[in-house]
Amino acid sequence: MAKVLTSKAENYSQWYNDLVSKADLAENSAVRGCMVIKPYGYAIWEKMQAQLDKMFKDTGHVNAYFPLFIPKSFFSKEAAHVDGFAKECAVVTHYRLMNDPDGKGVVVDPDAKLEEELIIRPTSETIIWSTYKNWIQSYRDLPILCNQWANVVRWEMRTRMFLRTTEFLWQEGHTAHETAEEALAETTQMINVYASFAEDFMAIPVIKGAKSANERFAGALETYTIEALMQDGKALQSGTSHFLGQNFAKAFDVQFANRDGKLDYVWASSWGVSTRLIGALIMAHSDDNGLVLPPKLAPYQVVIVPIYKNDEQLAEISVKADEIVAKLKARGISVKYDNRDSQRPGWKFAEYELKGVPVRLAIGPRDLENGSIEVARRDTLEKSIEQLENIDQFVADLLDKIQENIYNKAFQFREENTTKVDSYDQFKDLLVTKGGFFLAHWDGTVETELKIKEETKATIRCIPFDGAKEEGKCMVTGKPSSQRVIFALAY
Amino acid sequence: MAKVLTSKAENYSQWYNDLVSKADLAENSAVRGCMVIKPYGYAIWEKMQAQLDKMFKDTGHVNAYFPLFIPKSFFSKEAAHVDGFAKECAVVTHYRLMNDPDGKGVVVDPDAKLEEELIIRPTSETIIWSTYKNWIQSYRDLPILCNQWANVVRWEMRTRMFLRTTEFLWQEGHTAHETAEEALAETTQMINVYASFAEDFMAIPVIKGAKSANERFAGALETYTIEALMQDGKALQSGTSHFLGQNFAKAFDVQFANRDGKLDYVWASSWGVSTRLIGALIMAHSDDNGLVLPPKLAPYQVVIVPIYKNDEQLAEISVKADEIVAKLKARGISVKYDNRDSQRPGWKFAEYELKGVPVRLAIGPRDLENGSIEVARRDTLEKSIEQLENIDQFVADLLDKIQENIYNKAFQFREENTTKVDSYDQFKDLLVTKGGFFLAHWDGTVETELKIKEETKATIRCIPFDGAKEEGKCMVTGKPSSQRVIFALAY
Repeated sequence: MAKVLTSKAENYSQWYNDLVSKADLAENSAVRGCMVIKPYGYAIWEKMQAQLDKMFKDTGHVNAYFPLFIPKSFFSKEAAHVDGFAKECAVVTHYRLMNDPDGKGVVVDPDAKLEEELIIRPTSETIIWSTYKNWIQSYRDLPILCNQWANVVRWEMRTRMFLRTTEFLWQEGHTAHETAEEALAETTQMINVYASFAEDFMAIPVIKGAKSANERFAGALETYTIEALMQDGKALQSGTSHFLGQNFAKAFDVQFANRDGKLDYVWASSWGVSTRLIGALIMAHSDDNGLVLPPKLAPYQVVIVPIYKNDEQLAEISVKADEIVAKLKARGISVKYDNRDSQRPGWKFAEYELKGVPVRLAIGPRDLENGSIEVARRDTLEKSIEQLENIDQFVADLLDKIQENIYNKAFQFREENTTKVDSYDQFKDLLVTKGGFFLAHWDGTVETELKIKEETKATIRCIPFDGAKEEGKCMVTGKPSSQRVIFALAY
Repeated sequence: MAKVLTSKAENYSQWYNDLVSKADLAENSAVRGCMVIKPYGYAIWEKMQAQLDKMFKDTGHVNAYFPLFIPKSFFSKEAAHVDGFAKECAVVTHYRLMNDPDGKGVVVDPDAKLEEELIIRPTSETIIWSTYKNWIQSYRDLPILCNQWANVVRWEMRTRMFLRTTEFLWQEGHTAHETAEEALAETTQMINVYASFAEDFMAIPVIKGAKSANERFAGALETYTIEALMQDGKALQSGTSHFLGQNFAKAFDVQFANRDGKLDYVWASSWGVSTRLIGALIMAHSDDNGLVLPPKLAPYQVVIVPIYKNDEQLAEISVKADEIVAKLKARGISVKYDNRDSQRPGWKFAEYELKGVPVRLAIGPRDLENGSIEVARRDTLEKSIEQLENIDQFVADLLDKIQENIYNKAFQFREENTTKVDSYDQFKDLLVTKGGFFLAHWDGTVETELKIKEETKATIRCIPFDGAKEEGKCMVTGKPSSQRVIFALAY
């Protein structure tokens, strides 16, 4: 079968776009910057949602739903927040269309102008904290641990499917606490939840750390992040958790009677991951044949393809295939038996490779005679002949191995593409020739950070939590530094 | 404890609002007509979603996601559709805010005006059929069976929480078929799915039928509906499924090569239910003490309240309570052990009555001695003392009984409030004095339908599918009719 994808080596960006399209994950819509998430892509999102939602609930959170619209005036209440988001908002100004008096379609009814414009939420801190004001009187009302699954809109000028789209789907947690310590503990807990999800389910190793002041969320005192390395050597910020201090409580006047009976402002966190994670999943693992999906997030973990020459053979194979399907399902393994006669086995093999199904089973008349079955792994593309008996156990074990192997491969890649640098010249050189994560000393100033960004486009991805304290000198200014930080080019 | 709700008899509408608010289901937001769905209300929606999603997938559907925004011009493409929806749309005209030059907050940036305005989806037929055009070339691409869980916006002038809000959450199925027969079969299948969900899970009996031409969805050839009767004698349309013919395929030029190799327009259905169902759930079952939730949709099915005088007693009770919790959870029953010492048992009893928890267990020191436990049913408010041994089996059986009883009660109510009428005077009289569903003959014309609506505010809820064919005369005009239809005042 002809290659359907541009190769990664040839054009990484085109490879990504081809893959998103050919694997039926998503496509551009009629609305600039907005994508249609197709059923196969959405099925991955549903798997992600289900697992994340469980992890949120296991850590005591509940879901709720807040309005899509935010009154314009709310944006003025938190100074940093308005600067961070006001430039990229969809604004609703009218609430009615009417027939064009000239008879050409419909036009906006000028009489239906809103008194105050409504902003489509780019994030919900403002509308949620205006609501929390009514929910919180005393420390007995705290903590509030709400999450919301929702769509948000940020008017991006340059968009790429999943990575940066005008509308995207996400979850946003918004919590309210008695003390700074509690809010910080929540902020930390949630970045740990995201890291576990990325590593254990997406099979992507991530570095946890704090953002530099310059890269923080608009309105946050601290932003924690998980940073993943893509196969082209660029970083992808995959999830963030913010310690908001009392900023939003002050902006919306949310005070509570504390245990001493005194009024105090409430402490806040917020945290989110989005459909961007699907972009991370694609870019971390996939190859020139298509998607490589970790078994824990694959819509189908196993596909069975019958190899037959006539209806009689197909009937015999189907009896055995149905048995295998039943056994796999009993183990909680999702499986598809593709007995369509409109396509040949070779076409199906390529199709499921493209779609990243972790395990492919092929079974023909000779296999029935021999009690055997062909097993192909998507991650290594290895094939082997296995015994039909206990194939369910074999597949269950293999799925675990694939999950582990995909993670290890990504981990190995990151290790090989993480470089300690001590000179700015070396950094500039390797950033272009090698890429990846760079561990370097930085003097802690915004000036130096911006200078590096301007000269190289690289940004500080994070100040890693588990980076060893190490005295050193900033690679640019030579001023003292107590810890290496991570630089990279980023999506 | 003082009554927290206005009684139904006193003021049904106020009772409803009180209940939504006091049971922590939802509240009005800072944005006109938009509600905040609070965690307890959202938990009910999550239960509904999970079950409906399973039913959709069991009938072969997949989920996808389409843009929130619809280009204004799309609305002009289907003539009936634009008339039905254009009057109630939120319109995005700009994509940026800027600091007010006068220094007062933020204003819309006049330079950031969109060339073509974007409409927030009131329903997604247009954007979806513009997408399907790319997905469909041949009959081999059919059927397409997509569903979307999403928020939609209809600019309602008079809103009520859950029943009619500017923004609401829903699912919308959009299917594409080779033939009219297939699309009609899908339309029928989905109204049956909705009816099963309403009856088996919501414990609400519904009448399935077709809408009169005048009440059809804008752009549909047939609209099927499930109609439920609320306790105030008004009908609530609870779900609809539309046969769209080839209208949207023609509007968006979606043709396919059929089995004869000829080009034909694709046939369509669409179907949806929304957070309005929560309004139905509240109004169908609840009483002056609060919510009455069917066990299958209750966020907690069981609550356990300890009755104790000191910490030692609480510790002993908690050992037993933990055992019960474990046993109930093993049976898949959701249970909350409320051992908070900040509230008294009486307060907790009232709280869980208000919130409609189906079964309340209370356990004190004497129960421990006697091996007994107090069981209270929310639906009948009956209490009994049961043996602690095998209490999990008892509760499991009781939950089934409650589910059945709630349904039977609602069914009985509907039976008692469904009246056959043959004279218009009698109809007008009983509509006011009794309410409920009225089975009456109608001559099938829009004129008569509108006359009745104008004079009485009653509408034809549906032409029931299983209404016996019966010759008769229209109650208004005396013209011939072949079947009674259902009239009612409606939400």
